[in-house]
Amino acid sequence: MQIAVIGPGKATSQECEAAYATGRMIAGNGTLLVCGGHDGVMEAACRGAQEAGGTTVGILPGTEGGNPYLDITIRTGLGHARNVLVVLSADAVIAVGGRYGTLSEIATALKTGRPVYGIHTWDIEGVISCSSPEEAVTRALNDTARHRSA
Amino acid sequence: MQIAVIGPGKATSQECEAAYATGRMIAGNGTLLVCGGHDGVMEAACRGAQEAGGTTVGILPGTEGGNPYLDITIRTGLGHARNVLVVLSADAVIAVGGRYGTLSEIATALKTGRPVYGIHTWDIEGVISCSSPEEAVTRALNDTARHRSA
Amino acid sequence: MQIAVIGPGKATSQECEAAYATGRMIAGNGTLLVCGGHDGVMEAACRGAQEAGGTTVGILPGTEGGNPYLDITIRTGLGHARNVLVVLSADAVIAVGGRYGTLSEIATALKTGRPVYGIHTWDIEGVISCSSPEEAVTRALNDTARHRSA
Amino acid sequence: MQIAVIGPGKATSQECEAAYATGRMIAGNGTLLVCGGHDGVMEAACRGAQEAGGTTVGILPGTEGGNPYLDITIRTGLGHARNVLVVLSADAVIAVGGRYGTLSEIATALKTGRPVYGIHTWDIEGVISCSSPEEAVTRALNDTARHRSA
Repeated sequence: MQIAVIGPGKATSQECEAAYATGRMIAGNGTLLVCGGHDGVMEAACRGAQEAGGTTVGILPGTEGGNPYLDITIRTGLGHARNVLVVLSADAVIAVGGRYGTLSEIATALKTGRPVYGIHTWDIEGVISCSSPEEAVTRALNDTARHRSA
Repeated sequence: MQIAVIGPGKATSQECEAAYATGRMIAGNGTLLVCGGHDGVMEAACRGAQEAGGTTVGILPGTEGGNPYLDITIRTGLGHARNVLVVLSADAVIAVGGRYGTLSEIATALKTGRPVYGIHTWDIEGVISCSSPEEAVTRALNDTARHRSA
Repeated sequence: MQIAVIGPGKATSQECEAAYATGRMIAGNGTLLVCGGHDGVMEAACRGAQEAGGTTVGILPGTEGGNPYLDITIRTGLGHARNVLVVLSADAVIAVGGRYGTLSEIATALKTGRPVYGIHTWDIEGVISCSSPEEAVTRALNDTARHRSA
Repeated sequence: MQIAVIGPGKATSQECEAAYATGRMIAGNGTLLVCGGHDGVMEAACRGAQEAGGTTVGILPGTEGGNPYLDITIRTGLGHARNVLVVLSADAVIAVGGRYGTLSEIATALKTGRPVYGIHTWDIEGVISCSSPEEAVTRALNDTARHRSA
């Protein structure tokens, strides 16, 4: 099972706190964290996951770099098209904040049948709005487990 | 100058009429029409453009096929990631109807600074809502011309 | 019918002359020329095609630029992965000179069943070696026509 | 440090044995194994790595599936363009056997400055020919370590 955390590279401290908590909870469940590998929400989520003993994957738009909390680095050189890969590689997506880049990922996730759990993000039909990282991760894990056993 | 027309592959007759008129007007201005190369809104726009003597480009997600009104066929095999290329290859984007696939293209366009003109599509901050194909094409051409001379 | 001309962005004058002649002959036949949109062999082929009244398509690795002889510009932002699209969008491939980038395109063409005609390029099993642009274009056109009528 | 093992999906038993041994040695060194995630050489290398306690990453051309020995699955939907990502995500590449798909990866690796170690594969200028998995992995690790400390 792989969960993506998506959100802005330039994030508020509140968004980073939510992402950090989200990362911790994903890792605490033994689930792999996938993200875009950059700063802001992505870095905070990875830091949380690594501190909880989890494994993090960053799918970069470029061919080098990445935040310091990545266990596995996928260098794509694909630019904006890498957003699609972050979503496709996830069984569920948790969005924290975000502008148009995040919106494109939410839309691709909904288009391809992946559930999206949102924390202070776009209010788009199909996004499951959550009031906390705990709610988002719990629902993502439960829904995916239910989906698999069905 | 290249304008993209985006929208659903399975479109209503009203959406197809709007797309057809949009394609005609783009071609009438001597502007190149770019699209995803498939059915529905894309095909109607291409048909309109070809009937008005214009040139059409289809950027396909697969490696074969495409609607019958394409002058140039770009076969990508990229799947969902081809949406990004449709948008990047355009100086302006006109959206007719659409669901999540179209939303991902709108978001990528706004993320990368391309103006988006919408006809009965997503009401997202940044989308310039237009009441007719005429308004959408006229504004797209004028804004882009102004942008270029600035 | 679409033919790709591939080869180095930094080309010798001999390679540019061969590419220019190749572009002229492709356009003279009313066939569309596809290339990577950059300098060297690509630019020379486009210049030849445009001077002969043809249409040229450049599939760029970046999101802007391109040589001055492009009628249609596909901006991908895909980096090295754009090479795959140049090949997939062609019914036949003509390689003029080239190093590792060209080799990756030749290999992808052969992998996906596109015939490759080579002028002073890699001597790889499967590449049809030609002694002149005339031979390469003539064989590409004849083989593709035969393939279509079969 | 991440090493890619590339080679055919339909492989001989000899190639699979070499890939298996290569995977074991990569994992034994604590290095991450990256591959295309499919059968043949890729699967054998992953099986070897997992049995030696290592971690495996498969970068798939499609949006589902993958061999049974993958710890992390990157679903790209990119088709042939995913080959580029396998190479870019690696610090060094080991090729075992292979036809045109493998050749395209070798070419992309050399184009982008990644060392390529070959076991019974294409004899291309720039490929470092090795007589055994042990030699290939040892040289890949030593060269990369030297490169990093330089």
